[in-house]
Amino acid sequence: MSAPTADLLLTGRFVLPMDTKKTVIKDGGAAIGGDTLLAVDTTAELLRRYPQAEVLHEPHGLIMPGLVNVHTHAAMALFRGLADDLPLMQWLQDYIFPVEASLTGELVYQGSLLSICEMIRSGTTSFCDMYLFADEVAQAAAKAGIRAWVGEVLYDFPSPNYGESANGLACTKDLFARWRNHPLITVTVDPHAVYTCSPDLLTELGGMARDEGALYVIHLAENAEEVRICRERYGCTPVEHLEALGLLGPHVVADHCVMLTATEIALLAERGVKVAHCPESNLKLASGIAPVAEMLAAGITVGIGTDGSASNNDVDMFGEMNTAAKIQKFRCMDPTAMSADLTLTAATSGGAKVLGAEACIGSLEPGKKADCIVVDFDQPHLTPVYHPISHLVYAARGADVLHSVINGQVVMRNRELLTIDEKAVLAHAAEIGARFRRLCNGG
Amino acid sequence: MSAPTADLLLTGRFVLPMDTKKTVIKDGGAAIGGDTLLAVDTTAELLRRYPQAEVLHEPHGLIMPGLVNVHTHAAMALFRGLADDLPLMQWLQDYIFPVEASLTGELVYQGSLLSICEMIRSGTTSFCDMYLFADEVAQAAAKAGIRAWVGEVLYDFPSPNYGESANGLACTKDLFARWRNHPLITVTVDPHAVYTCSPDLLTELGGMARDEGALYVIHLAENAEEVRICRERYGCTPVEHLEALGLLGPHVVADHCVMLTATEIALLAERGVKVAHCPESNLKLASGIAPVAEMLAAGITVGIGTDGSASNNDVDMFGEMNTAAKIQKFRCMDPTAMSADLTLTAATSGGAKVLGAEACIGSLEPGKKADCIVVDFDQPHLTPVYHPISHLVYAARGADVLHSVINGQVVMRNRELLTIDEKAVLAHAAEIGARFRRLCNGG
Ligand SMILES: [Zn+2]
Ligand SMILES: [Zn+2]
Repeated sequence: MSAPTADLLLTGRFVLPMDTKKTVIKDGGAAIGGDTLLAVDTTAELLRRYPQAEVLHEPHGLIMPGLVNVHTHAAMALFRGLADDLPLMQWLQDYIFPVEASLTGELVYQGSLLSICEMIRSGTTSFCDMYLFADEVAQAAAKAGIRAWVGEVLYDFPSPNYGESANGLACTKDLFARWRNHPLITVTVDPHAVYTCSPDLLTELGGMARDEGALYVIHLAENAEEVRICRERYGCTPVEHLEALGLLGPHVVADHCVMLTATEIALLAERGVKVAHCPESNLKLASGIAPVAEMLAAGITVGIGTDGSASNNDVDMFGEMNTAAKIQKFRCMDPTAMSADLTLTAATSGGAKVLGAEACIGSLEPGKKADCIVVDFDQPHLTPVYHPISHLVYAARGADVLHSVINGQVVMRNRELLTIDEKAVLAHAAEIGARFRRLCNGG
Repeated sequence: MSAPTADLLLTGRFVLPMDTKKTVIKDGGAAIGGDTLLAVDTTAELLRRYPQAEVLHEPHGLIMPGLVNVHTHAAMALFRGLADDLPLMQWLQDYIFPVEASLTGELVYQGSLLSICEMIRSGTTSFCDMYLFADEVAQAAAKAGIRAWVGEVLYDFPSPNYGESANGLACTKDLFARWRNHPLITVTVDPHAVYTCSPDLLTELGGMARDEGALYVIHLAENAEEVRICRERYGCTPVEHLEALGLLGPHVVADHCVMLTATEIALLAERGVKVAHCPESNLKLASGIAPVAEMLAAGITVGIGTDGSASNNDVDMFGEMNTAAKIQKFRCMDPTAMSADLTLTAATSGGAKVLGAEACIGSLEPGKKADCIVVDFDQPHLTPVYHPISHLVYAARGADVLHSVINGQVVMRNRELLTIDEKAVLAHAAEIGARFRRLCNGG
C-alpha cells in the first residue's frame, strides 16, 4: 500500500503542533489529505514527500491547531450589546427573557451563523454550544463546515422550542438520532444548571448521557447566588449536589466552576470532571475568577470558553486566552501563574480533552483531523518574535488569523469566508436586531 | 469674514463625538480644515456646508475621537515577549536590565516607531510616554505624525542616555528647549518612582515642572513592594511621601495607583492629581486592580494606559478598555460598575484631561484639533448594533479601525499607514530582535 496523497500543504515561518513534546518547527508546515493530517514537518521535507499537493505558503505565517471554544451560546450573538452594565435580574427579566421567549428555529440558525462567522474569523475551529433549538445550531455548524458539540438546553420550565419540560428528553433523543455519525456534529446532553433543573431531571439526563456515551454539559458553581440557592434548596453546594446524585464523572463538562472549595476541586479531579473556564463572562457578570491554577495543579483538564456574546461580548478566543492568563496571575498574586504555554494548551489540546476528542483534534499530529489555522506574524504587534507562544497569548488577536482549515476543508482563505455568505448573514442579523430593538422598547 | 473651508469630510453611519451632551449622530460626520475640526453634523448638512471638501465616506463606519493612551514606554515594543511569566526580579535582572543597558538613541527611535505603527493601527492618536532617550521618542512621534507627551525617565542611577544622574535635569531642560511649540510634541517631567528617586530629585523635578508649566509624570503606588520599600525608607506610603514633599497637584499624572487607601483617594481628589490606569499590566505583573470605581466616585480624572509592551503585551486601547471595564465589575462584585460609557470616556476625553489637553483633544467638537478615527462596523462581531458604545468597549478590536486622522493629517487610510514606512520598520525591528536574543542568551 502506498502512502496517502496530500491534497494541501500549509507552510510558513513556524509550525506549533501543540503536541506533548512541545515541538516548534521553523520553516515548516502541515500536509493534509482528505479530512486528515498526514504529516507535520519542515517545508522542504513536505515538498519532497508531497510534490503534487497544492501549497498555501505564508512566509510570515504560524501554523497551529484551531482553537477549541468549550462553552458558547452562539445564537446570542444576536443579543450582543442589547443590554450591558445592568444588575443580573434586570438584564434577564427586561431584556434576555423577552427576546429569548420570541426565539424561533430560524432566528437561532441565523444567530448561530453570525457567531460562526466571528468564530472562524478569530481562529476557532470547534465549539461546544448549549442553547435552544440545538438542531438549528447543528445545521448552521454543518452548513459552515465548523466542528461543533451541540446540546438542547434543558430545564424545568417550558421551552420556546419543545414546549413542556417533559418533551425535553424526546427532543434530545431526536437530536441524537438526527446527527449520529455526522463528521462534524456531536450531540451532548445539556441540563442548564442545578438551580433550574430538578434532581429528577438531572438524574434522568445523566442516564441518557450514559446510554448515549455523550457528554453531560452543565453550568456549575458559576456564582455566589447559585451556591446560595442550592444550599437553601438542598442543603449543599452545587458540586456536592451532583455528587450526591451520583452524576459526576469523566463525561461531565462543568461550565464556569468559579465557586469551588479545595475539597470540591479534589473531588472534581477524582471524578475526572472537565472544566470549561469562561473568564471574560465571569468578570463581566461580576461572578468572580475561577481557581484555574488550583484546578490544573489538581490534575483537572481545563478548557477555555467565551460563553454567550451577551455576556462577553465576543467569541474571540485570542482575547479570552489573554484575559485567562492575566487574571489568574492577579488571582494568585504571582506573575508566573497561568503561563502562556498553559493557557494556549487549555485553548487547544486541553479543550479537545474537555470534549473527549483528544484523539481527533487539539494538536497537529498525523492521523488527527485537519483542523488548523494560519496566523499572520507580519505585523507590528507580533514583531520581533522571541517566543511564538507568548505572542499568541499576550499580543495576537483574532483578526491576525489569515486562513482556517476544518476537517480538511479551507473555510477561510485570506480572511475571506468560503463556506458562508457573510454579507447575507450580516444583512439578516441587522434586520433581526431591528426587530429585537422594537421588542425591548415595547413597540 | 467667511467661514473656514473644510479640506476633508469624514462621514459614516454613526458619529460619536464623546462630548458632554452624549450626542450620537446617525448618518453624520466631521469636517476638518487644516489641523482643526470645523463641524460635527449630519452628512447631509456637512455636504451642504462644505461642497468643495474631499469626502471619505464609510457607509458602515463610526467616527469618533482617537484614543488617548496615557501611559506607555513605546520603545519596549522591542522587548515584547522576550520574557514573560517570570518573577519580577528575574524578569528585570536577567532580561530587561541587560537589554536596556545596551539601548541607544537609534534603538529607541526604531522601537518607538514600531509601537507607533501598532498604536495608529489600533486607533490611538495620542500617547504619553516615559522612557530613556525621550528625544528620539519625540522624533519618532513627530515623524509619524502622532500626538505625544514625552518625558526622559529620571532616577538616582546612571542612564544609558545622559550618564550620571546629575545630568538628568539638563537633559530634560534640553528636551523642553528642543520641542517648545511643536504642534504634536509636549515635553513632561518624569521621575520614575518614589523608590528609584531620592526626595531631593523628586523635589527638584517638581520645581522644574512648575517652572515649565509641565506635567509631572510618575509611577505611583503600583504594587505592594513599592509601598513596602517606601514605608521602610520614609515611614509612609508613596502617596503620603509625595504629599509630605508638597508635590501633589493638578499637573501630576500618577501612573497605576493600584495600592490606594480611601484616605489617599480623597487626598488625590483634593489635590487634583490625575491617574493613568493600566489594567492589563497590573494584572500581568500580579500587582492588583486599581480602585477606579472609587477614584471616579471621588471625582478623580482617570485615563487609560497600556504601559510598556513588555508587560501587557500590546498597546491596543480597545483591548485595554475591555479589560478595564470587566475587571472593575469583578473588583466591585457589581456588573453595573465601570460601564462602557465611563470606560470609553476614560479612554478619550478623560485621557485628554489627564494630559491637561481637554481644550484640544478627547472629543469631536468644533475648534478642537482634528484627531479622529473611523471604526468599521461592517463585521460579524459588531452586527447588529444596539448601542455603539457597548460594541466599542466590549467587542471591537484595534484591527477594526479603518482610517485615522491626527492633527488634520490622514495617517492611516484603509489600514495602510501613510506616514511610516511600515515594511522597513518591521524589518529593522526583526534585526534588533535577533541582536537582543543573542544578548539574553549570553552569545
Ligand atoms: Zn453559559
Ligand atoms: Zn510604566
